[in-house]
Amino acid sequence: MACKCIMPDEMSKPLIRERGEGGSSRHLEAPMSDPGDPVIGILGTGDFSRSLARRLVASGYQVVVGSRTPKRSVALFPAEAEVTSQMEAASQADLIFVAIFSEHHSTLMPLKSVLAGKTLVDVSNGLHISQDGPSNAEMLADFFPESCVVKGFNTISAWTLQMGPQDGNRQVFLCSDSQKAKNSVKQICHRMGFIPVDMGLLSSSLEVENLPLYLFPSWRVPILCTLSLFIFFYLYNFLRDVLQPYITAGKSSFYKMPIEIVNVTLPSVALVMLALVYLPGLFAAFLQLWWGTKYNRFPGRLDRWLVTRKQFGLCSFLCAVLHAIYSLCLPLRKSARFKLINMAYKQVKAGVEDSWVDEEVWRMELYLSVGIMALGLLSLLAVTSLPSVASTVNWREFSFIQSTLGYCALFMATVHTLLYGWNRAFDASQYRFYLPPTFVLVLLLPILVLLGRLALFVPCVAGRLRQIRRGWEQSRHIRFTLPAEDCRNGLEDISNV
Amino acid sequence: MACKCIMPDEMSKPLIRERGEGGSSRHLEAPMSDPGDPVIGILGTGDFSRSLARRLVASGYQVVVGSRTPKRSVALFPAEAEVTSQMEAASQADLIFVAIFSEHHSTLMPLKSVLAGKTLVDVSNGLHISQDGPSNAEMLADFFPESCVVKGFNTISAWTLQMGPQDGNRQVFLCSDSQKAKNSVKQICHRMGFIPVDMGLLSSSLEVENLPLYLFPSWRVPILCTLSLFIFFYLYNFLRDVLQPYITAGKSSFYKMPIEIVNVTLPSVALVMLALVYLPGLFAAFLQLWWGTKYNRFPGRLDRWLVTRKQFGLCSFLCAVLHAIYSLCLPLRKSARFKLINMAYKQVKAGVEDSWVDEEVWRMELYLSVGIMALGLLSLLAVTSLPSVASTVNWREFSFIQSTLGYCALFMATVHTLLYGWNRAFDASQYRFYLPPTFVLVLLLPILVLLGRLALFVPCVAGRLRQIRRGWEQSRHIRFTLPAEDCRNGLEDISNV
Amino acid sequence: MACKCIMPDEMSKPLIRERGEGGSSRHLEAPMSDPGDPVIGILGTGDFSRSLARRLVASGYQVVVGSRTPKRSVALFPAEAEVTSQMEAASQADLIFVAIFSEHHSTLMPLKSVLAGKTLVDVSNGLHISQDGPSNAEMLADFFPESCVVKGFNTISAWTLQMGPQDGNRQVFLCSDSQKAKNSVKQICHRMGFIPVDMGLLSSSLEVENLPLYLFPSWRVPILCTLSLFIFFYLYNFLRDVLQPYITAGKSSFYKMPIEIVNVTLPSVALVMLALVYLPGLFAAFLQLWWGTKYNRFPGRLDRWLVTRKQFGLCSFLCAVLHAIYSLCLPLRKSARFKLINMAYKQVKAGVEDSWVDEEVWRMELYLSVGIMALGLLSLLAVTSLPSVASTVNWREFSFIQSTLGYCALFMATVHTLLYGWNRAFDASQYRFYLPPTFVLVLLLPILVLLGRLALFVPCVAGRLRQIRRGWEQSRHIRFTLPAEDCRNGLEDISNV
Repeated sequence: MACKCIMPDEMSKPLIRERGEGGSSRHLEAPMSDPGDPVIGILGTGDFSRSLARRLVASGYQVVVGSRTPKRSVALFPAEAEVTSQMEAASQADLIFVAIFSEHHSTLMPLKSVLAGKTLVDVSNGLHISQDGPSNAEMLADFFPESCVVKGFNTISAWTLQMGPQDGNRQVFLCSDSQKAKNSVKQICHRMGFIPVDMGLLSSSLEVENLPLYLFPSWRVPILCTLSLFIFFYLYNFLRDVLQPYITAGKSSFYKMPIEIVNVTLPSVALVMLALVYLPGLFAAFLQLWWGTKYNRFPGRLDRWLVTRKQFGLCSFLCAVLHAIYSLCLPLRKSARFKLINMAYKQVKAGVEDSWVDEEVWRMELYLSVGIMALGLLSLLAVTSLPSVASTVNWREFSFIQSTLGYCALFMATVHTLLYGWNRAFDASQYRFYLPPTFVLVLLLPILVLLGRLALFVPCVAGRLRQIRRGWEQSRHIRFTLPAEDCRNGLEDISNV
Repeated sequence: MACKCIMPDEMSKPLIRERGEGGSSRHLEAPMSDPGDPVIGILGTGDFSRSLARRLVASGYQVVVGSRTPKRSVALFPAEAEVTSQMEAASQADLIFVAIFSEHHSTLMPLKSVLAGKTLVDVSNGLHISQDGPSNAEMLADFFPESCVVKGFNTISAWTLQMGPQDGNRQVFLCSDSQKAKNSVKQICHRMGFIPVDMGLLSSSLEVENLPLYLFPSWRVPILCTLSLFIFFYLYNFLRDVLQPYITAGKSSFYKMPIEIVNVTLPSVALVMLALVYLPGLFAAFLQLWWGTKYNRFPGRLDRWLVTRKQFGLCSFLCAVLHAIYSLCLPLRKSARFKLINMAYKQVKAGVEDSWVDEEVWRMELYLSVGIMALGLLSLLAVTSLPSVASTVNWREFSFIQSTLGYCALFMATVHTLLYGWNRAFDASQYRFYLPPTFVLVLLLPILVLLGRLALFVPCVAGRLRQIRRGWEQSRHIRFTLPAEDCRNGLEDISNV
Repeated sequence: MACKCIMPDEMSKPLIRERGEGGSSRHLEAPMSDPGDPVIGILGTGDFSRSLARRLVASGYQVVVGSRTPKRSVALFPAEAEVTSQMEAASQADLIFVAIFSEHHSTLMPLKSVLAGKTLVDVSNGLHISQDGPSNAEMLADFFPESCVVKGFNTISAWTLQMGPQDGNRQVFLCSDSQKAKNSVKQICHRMGFIPVDMGLLSSSLEVENLPLYLFPSWRVPILCTLSLFIFFYLYNFLRDVLQPYITAGKSSFYKMPIEIVNVTLPSVALVMLALVYLPGLFAAFLQLWWGTKYNRFPGRLDRWLVTRKQFGLCSFLCAVLHAIYSLCLPLRKSARFKLINMAYKQVKAGVEDSWVDEEVWRMELYLSVGIMALGLLSLLAVTSLPSVASTVNWREFSFIQSTLGYCALFMATVHTLLYGWNRAFDASQYRFYLPPTFVLVLLLPILVLLGRLALFVPCVAGRLRQIRRGWEQSRHIRFTLPAEDCRNGLEDISNV
């Protein structure tokens, strides 16, 4: 349903295109080959090597492909690329891409002598994240000790090579023990329109091979956090709203489980998660105040927390939106209608002409409107967290939205919950099984955060923090190590988020 | 309401700026002109040539503009550009942009001798898509047989030239019969920050001229498909829910047409479209299993289908969202209120104290909650189909969202419909005019797709498919033509989407 | 909750990383240092200079950092960078970044002789927008008259330097009185992956220093406009719907203030704002018709208005969405339920079996469905105004969505309001305090705009306008100053938006 779906377009093209047909060449930059260019070899004839060959040719390189079945493979490659035997290719080129399975690297041993002194680029990946080596690249290096092995391009998919780097990630992570070999590969990256990223020595090739295998690492903690909060609050509400009436009064209201309980649980999760977005920033600020410097490293956990605030925020937003949808669904339900009609019935029987209760009306009108505003603010934050939007605002605008508006949203959401709770916190009958109403638990953290933020507004504290942020240190009074605008980047957000 | 609206900004600048004012130069890269640079000529003084001149100057070229009214035009161009007569400009420059209407190319005939042997870049466009030539560029080439005509830059708008390539599409599609001329234009593209895209010989200039005239070609089929499905289901529901009661019972419920019928139609369309997103992937997978290789080309239709899955998915998402909004509007309507009150009236008259029907309640609670989850998943898919988001995830994450979550969404939506249908499929009274309830028709395809996907999970089938995807072929057992990571791009998604 | 939140990651890395650890180097391009490269000096050891040093090293420059406390600072910089005394650094390098507070520039006076004839890059920012100089850069130039001062990089935050330019804004605004110095800095920009933007002479350094301090300048007018419209309509509705019944009938309906009044106000604002999006385009078109040329400059106000149409549109969209949410909340409210039950009670008492009023039902069904469609279209417009989406469509598609669909949305919204108003405009009882119903006021502008647009469709007018847009002028009949495709950019949208 996304670009993914247009890949087959790209990928199938080489499969379905007759040799020389220009169909997909539109996606390739233009040949600018000149004699001076180095000859580049590719071993292997898979989709990846085909796409690689196409882009190399497009970037003006002379390409020679080494295949075990040249005759058969030639049809798969662009006309400009020479397709020959592996031996032939290996001997012609000084820089060779090894585009075959790592488990078959050994089949290249016959080329050992020819490959000596040449640069081998290992583009292979592991099949699953592994924490202990040797990596494919290291094994390749063991096979060919006289060659300079460079790890790279494994994060680039065949379709990215075809589409050209303007789609998707442009970074190519490289590592090698030979700086010279690395540099020559970097040149090729630049010319193909990619951004080479130096990962240091070949020892880090394992990490490079893991890169494309990661599955949302930065989302793991926030999602786990959301889920556990959800489960906790769900059970808590289930206990109070379903089990308690069932046990005490034998009143079966299990029908509440799919929607009503969920709808009480979601906002609780949303609000707590939102508070968790701003909590670490406060911790950091207070730590810095305590240390009297910003040049100490934060404890690892706090640091990781600071890094994943965006994810926490988006999880909170998701819950908030779902909460809105669930709430709007309430009057849709048959159960709501039945209740309404039964109430009408009762009122008629009781002969009450007007059952209007002004307080209830006001309470609901208020917490609904405040809730809508909070949601609106959160949506703004979510929109500005889109990469393409975030990149169009300057730092000040960004911190305004993310911290100022963010705290407004937190405040609104807290008020929304307070109004929802109204005076029920002080109503004994609400303490079923001696359990306080959910919103009481929920409010603890947000109120704590808001108070903490207020504390940072106290002039003396704020002034001290500003000093520290500008590089001032308790220990030695160097005051000018930092350009002024630096207080609008980096650590600043720790204070205002 | 979008960047479009900021164009006048860019466009009007030249109109409202005094010569030399720096206003918009901020959007231009900086002059790095050095004597060695070629002189570039521009014929024509329209907005396009003005913007082109500005960017060329900004990229450090010496620009000479050929105008029929140099004195008057000079004020429109940046100070660094020389504005002179057409003849003068044509003779000074070796590479000349022809920025005048194609229908006025003939007026350049007097320059024929001067232009001989020089490179002419035709930036003009057709006014409507034409399938048979000659293209403007070809006609220009006929006028000036001794010049090398290059087609290009027609896809770049004046404001893109002004804003600089960081906004909008950076690709410049070039074609020419002279490789040398083409290469020199490519150099200019690169220096201006554009990405030249080689479209081959001048014969493809017609296609290039058509490019900016296309109106969502990839959306045509999906939208047509959506519309026809909509019309079919709308009529079907109209027949069952409005016409039938009217004819049989004379009960007029035409008021249902604007909302209720639409609200039954939309989810049907959404679900069928969603199934159509994943159907072609299954076809492809089974075809590959059947062939025993992935190196056969797919039938053209299947191929085009695979390419437009993203659009199918987004259409389905749109319908789903509208369905949600329509549903939420239901209790708003006067009609709903009237019904409710009348029901209350009846209940009172009938003296029924409690009209609660547990089964109906449960059914609704369940299908509502499942529906909300399905919508939530679809929204995730939609968000990740935003270019800027899609480019931040690696391949594995992408395929996880688009295929795994996608199938979850399809499954949820199917369950949602099943719960909605409940046991009515087996209720004779539902078969009005012998027509089965809508949801029965709707469910056929999704269930088919889900079963097909399940079949691919059967170990032996899955294993075989994996082999094939990794390049294994029934015919000859070459197993190592493909780097491992290739199973994470290109054709892979055919299997998991 | 957005990238902002990942900055600490980037920023804290230097703080929490042991020297030489490769952790964040992944975000840096690769060293390609060769002896020929110029040595670049940095004065100051703050976060900014650290990030700058890291990126310079990564881009292959030799970096020498001048610190007042070399021993202490060395640990903060990458191993490849030499950290020494300020004097030492100043003397070694020909191009020096001054990364210290502007108020401490004076402390560099001792280096004056050493810095003579060298290029100083001032990266400092003002602390608040100032309209009158001297700028920090100008003051620096006064301190070191023999050095060439270049202003720049102040818009780039330390984290952008660390992440690399692929995140956030890639433009580096430069200005200097020495073209030579400017060019050398430009080279560095290009090599670091940034796009240098020439802002001219040092006199414009004040503007450059203000750039990062702006807070949504283009949003000010639209938001002010939205707010004032909101306040006006809110008071108007309050007067009609709350105050009037209270005063005349003593009926207290103040509970309507948080939601119902807001919900009548929001759509009014949305519709008027939407009309304001398309009004300036009409003005521009009629002005051009009046002038008979497009080469006159528009009055400044109209011009600024044209530029902010996107913002007007998004404000209108926001109001429309809020209006939708508020409306969907209506049946949720206790007040709605009380009313319903009371109505039921009355009906029972009155013994009316069926209170169904067909006209009311139809009216509501119709205006709801039209409203939903209008909202759907607006959402499409909003999505295409996302930078990453807008950049994937060609000009024709863009103008189709923004103008054609945009006018459809305006039309739909107008019809929605008309249907909502129904015949109440002619109902005397609606004119409380002689004030016409809100929707009457609201409709004036949109209908005006739609009529104006229709006028432009009249063949003769349309033809004339097309001529003018293609460069034709009443005065002198030059008809071919403009390439055809130019009518698909720049001014075109003035006509179709």
